[in-house]
Amino acid sequence: MAAELTAQQLTAQHRPTLDRALEAIRTRAYWSPHPEHPKAYGENGSLDLAAGKAAFDALLGTRLDLGQPGTDDWVGGETSPYGVELGVSYPHADLDALLPAMRAGMRAWRDAGAETRAVVCLEILKRIGDRTLEFAHAVMHTSGQAFMMAFQAGGPHAQDRGLEAVAYAYAEQTRTPDTAEWTKPQGKRDPLALTKRFTPVPRGIGLVVGCNTFPTWNGYPGLFASLATGNAVLVKPHPRAVLPLALTVQVARQVLTEAGFDPNLVALAAERPDEGIAKTLATRPEVRIIDYTGSTEFGDWLEANARQAQVYTEKAGVNTVIVESAGDYRGMLANLAFSLSLYSGQMCTTPQNLLIPRDGITTDQGPKSFDEVVADLAQAVDGLLGDDTRAVGLLGALVNPGVKDRLEAAAGLGEVALASRRIAHPEFPDAVVRTPLIVKLDGAKPDAEAAYMSECFGPVSFAVAVDSASDAAELLRRTVRERGAMTVGAYTTSPEFEEEVREVCLEEAAQLSLNLTGGVYVNQTAAFSDFHGSGGNPAANAALTDAAFVANRFRVIEVRQEA
Amino acid sequence: MAAELTAQQLTAQHRPTLDRALEAIRTRAYWSPHPEHPKAYGENGSLDLAAGKAAFDALLGTRLDLGQPGTDDWVGGETSPYGVELGVSYPHADLDALLPAMRAGMRAWRDAGAETRAVVCLEILKRIGDRTLEFAHAVMHTSGQAFMMAFQAGGPHAQDRGLEAVAYAYAEQTRTPDTAEWTKPQGKRDPLALTKRFTPVPRGIGLVVGCNTFPTWNGYPGLFASLATGNAVLVKPHPRAVLPLALTVQVARQVLTEAGFDPNLVALAAERPDEGIAKTLATRPEVRIIDYTGSTEFGDWLEANARQAQVYTEKAGVNTVIVESAGDYRGMLANLAFSLSLYSGQMCTTPQNLLIPRDGITTDQGPKSFDEVVADLAQAVDGLLGDDTRAVGLLGALVNPGVKDRLEAAAGLGEVALASRRIAHPEFPDAVVRTPLIVKLDGAKPDAEAAYMSECFGPVSFAVAVDSASDAAELLRRTVRERGAMTVGAYTTSPEFEEEVREVCLEEAAQLSLNLTGGVYVNQTAAFSDFHGSGGNPAANAALTDAAFVANRFRVIEVRQEA
Repeated sequence: MAAELTAQQLTAQHRPTLDRALEAIRTRAYWSPHPEHPKAYGENGSLDLAAGKAAFDALLGTRLDLGQPGTDDWVGGETSPYGVELGVSYPHADLDALLPAMRAGMRAWRDAGAETRAVVCLEILKRIGDRTLEFAHAVMHTSGQAFMMAFQAGGPHAQDRGLEAVAYAYAEQTRTPDTAEWTKPQGKRDPLALTKRFTPVPRGIGLVVGCNTFPTWNGYPGLFASLATGNAVLVKPHPRAVLPLALTVQVARQVLTEAGFDPNLVALAAERPDEGIAKTLATRPEVRIIDYTGSTEFGDWLEANARQAQVYTEKAGVNTVIVESAGDYRGMLANLAFSLSLYSGQMCTTPQNLLIPRDGITTDQGPKSFDEVVADLAQAVDGLLGDDTRAVGLLGALVNPGVKDRLEAAAGLGEVALASRRIAHPEFPDAVVRTPLIVKLDGAKPDAEAAYMSECFGPVSFAVAVDSASDAAELLRRTVRERGAMTVGAYTTSPEFEEEVREVCLEEAAQLSLNLTGGVYVNQTAAFSDFHGSGGNPAANAALTDAAFVANRFRVIEVRQEA
Repeated sequence: MAAELTAQQLTAQHRPTLDRALEAIRTRAYWSPHPEHPKAYGENGSLDLAAGKAAFDALLGTRLDLGQPGTDDWVGGETSPYGVELGVSYPHADLDALLPAMRAGMRAWRDAGAETRAVVCLEILKRIGDRTLEFAHAVMHTSGQAFMMAFQAGGPHAQDRGLEAVAYAYAEQTRTPDTAEWTKPQGKRDPLALTKRFTPVPRGIGLVVGCNTFPTWNGYPGLFASLATGNAVLVKPHPRAVLPLALTVQVARQVLTEAGFDPNLVALAAERPDEGIAKTLATRPEVRIIDYTGSTEFGDWLEANARQAQVYTEKAGVNTVIVESAGDYRGMLANLAFSLSLYSGQMCTTPQNLLIPRDGITTDQGPKSFDEVVADLAQAVDGLLGDDTRAVGLLGALVNPGVKDRLEAAAGLGEVALASRRIAHPEFPDAVVRTPLIVKLDGAKPDAEAAYMSECFGPVSFAVAVDSASDAAELLRRTVRERGAMTVGAYTTSPEFEEEVREVCLEEAAQLSLNLTGGVYVNQTAAFSDFHGSGGNPAANAALTDAAFVANRFRVIEVRQEA
């Protein structure tokens, strides 16, 4: 079969982007090839936006036939957190037919080499990028993110993370040369001379287990890291967030076909309600790599039981912000209010525990008592979310009923400093939209510990009164060590305390944001520059993305013979 | 405390070597800074050799006091495979005292940075290198290797592998810059600007579980990889091979002290007879990395149970050589005879199964029947080992009684093509010296499979008659997949068959040597160029040394704040 896209064409088109990405991960300066404004996606402004919406609408109620072998049924039935029935059905796979079919194309994919694999991956990302406005709706109506966030985080930012993984994968595979001439002197005798060939070989099938809240952002790193290192990739989406990853698989299969490779190198594993196929898939001998985002319980199960595979997990954690003192009190409040509100706190990076000395703090606005800080933060959140239209644009919808139940229960855990407010969505009456709840807890009271030492995923945060700044640092240490953390924030004007918190983060392996008061938030990381998680505390066993995330997805095989 | 060795001095001295090592792992051309001839270790030839022996002799019967905290007893009692009682005693540790003490110096070691850690490690290697002739005796009298091999494999080659690990560790830690300025344009508004600091942080204590046969060669990669990435390292030697690693720990502690670091960053965990402390150590929460060489049974146990740690294992495997045809029949026989004889086949890389078509092979010496090939190989071994003095110089001694028992039992597994011969050691009458046994098996007979599909560690190989070359390739595939392999060899003049074997090795992740007839042997790998194992088949979950071996021994922690 003559490929419609030759490796040469793809290399000419994408190699400059790959080189730029390689430079970015080395310098970690700002860079992205994926624009963050909807208007960049087309020439026609609102017409393009409408076209993206129309493309999404056209998917509703359809069967997404990916042409996968071993399809024995059609499954689906996602309901948007905004109340829309998606009605899309997806192939259900007979694994004994699909998995062997996925392996069939691996040899050619391996022999294509690291550069061709990278540029094919970049073409997949480009095609996804071209449909960003359509993907935005698919992410919005599965995750409950507001449109603008679904567009940014589910579109360009997810594509950034995918490209970053491709760049790391390429860099890693090319650290060993394809060939080497090895000549060892032997004194007066002839030297020993060998010719050596080195080939990166894949491990097998990579399984990506997607999550409900960030199907593309959290799915792309593992998907592209495994694919770029020569593996086939089976994508098992969260049953409530299938569409964005199914579209991704569809694009990947199309590009692979056009480039002359077997489309079955990427496939979808959708499941029937309550089928729970992740456990079955995760322990199949063909599956040699697993990328998972979700609960600690299942992440731990994977690490313990999927022993035939390399397992990369992002699990639950308890994120802390320490407020020791503030050089820009209003900036701090505004920044924190935004962090707590964005996507109703349903990010693995959203702060949960705000540790504040019970005797109050010093600020550029004068001393503030514990109660004042909490009240001012509550007011800042209120102000940010005072206008309902603006509020729904920030909050989005609660992703599932569990979050709502947890939010309602959390109000009973202590004194409510800021009550959660129901907002009617102007467009989607069935959407469950809630503003953040802030509950005061006393860190010295043992009965409060059960609350603040557990992850309460959703728009819930705890303002925890601590005896001193050093107590805060020690509680931070214990929280990260025992519960894990994806992010840590701290506000302080004291160089000594800054050093103390920094040391805790270095020792407990947590990523630290200091004194953020402007337009960067503790819960946001930028690909090519920020690491997402550290891989060194219980919240995640891997970081997005570093060399350790890619280096064990392939092995280098050497064939040597006398020269 | 003023350091006697400043980082500046060490950098000036060792940075050129580090740079050269970094270049070598990139090009994989031949390089080593550690000479392979005893005469390079001093100006005085046999006087230096005598001094090395004298230094070793002076250790016998002594207490090796390493000055470790928490020493609650003295243990030891190694007997050389050559019959010499070493009588050296070592500190036995109270772990609840030693492990906290090991953690105390980690902050300063972390803050020293990757380059200083690397050059301190290089100084340790240099000091070890200066005592190579002494270490040679320590390795000889614990492993049973002959002196020349103990000198080379236990000295320069082990030091090479240590340096290689340091180079990989340095490269990996410096791929992310120390700092970055991140400036993101915001259209007409001011850009977002962050300053970011990135710090490689260690995981904790690395545990090295040493082996009996290659205490330094197999121990140094993990030891130096963990130390160079900022971890403390606890060395738990094999109870029969303590001395070489105890001396290593002694040197490391001395250099750390002189360089102003805490000597407890490196410590020894010697054990009482049958104490079996490896399991206790491996599951201590302080231990976050484990490097292990030894049995599959315990390696699998570590992988399953030491869940708090990164576990790197080299276990058992079944190495295969396929003889399909020979372009240099005599060269092949000589090369194989040496491979089977070296260190009495007690290398994890020694070929065990020689797969030969039952209808014979073509060679440059005319066609050879299966029986002729086996008889000619037996004769080649006999010729190589005909002179007893030369033979003991190649064979060394059997490392422990288990090897002798296995060898004796193996003679009953089939038709003996070459009987194992007892050789009296001219210098050490108690040494158990045996020549290799070659047993013929019929690959088509199911009862033979139990023999050739298990590792029979020691001077035992099986000449397995197979129906065809393709049968050999399939048996190779099954052997690697089910039992693992550290090495594969093949002899063939057929490009098609070469491709068939190569494909099996790429698919099953085994390292392949083709048509070796000269002075390079399938069981030898050269640091900086050859990978030892692949990490992709059941014989080992890691390769020595690649990026995956080092990248997860540390994590990168980012601290970001507004610029």
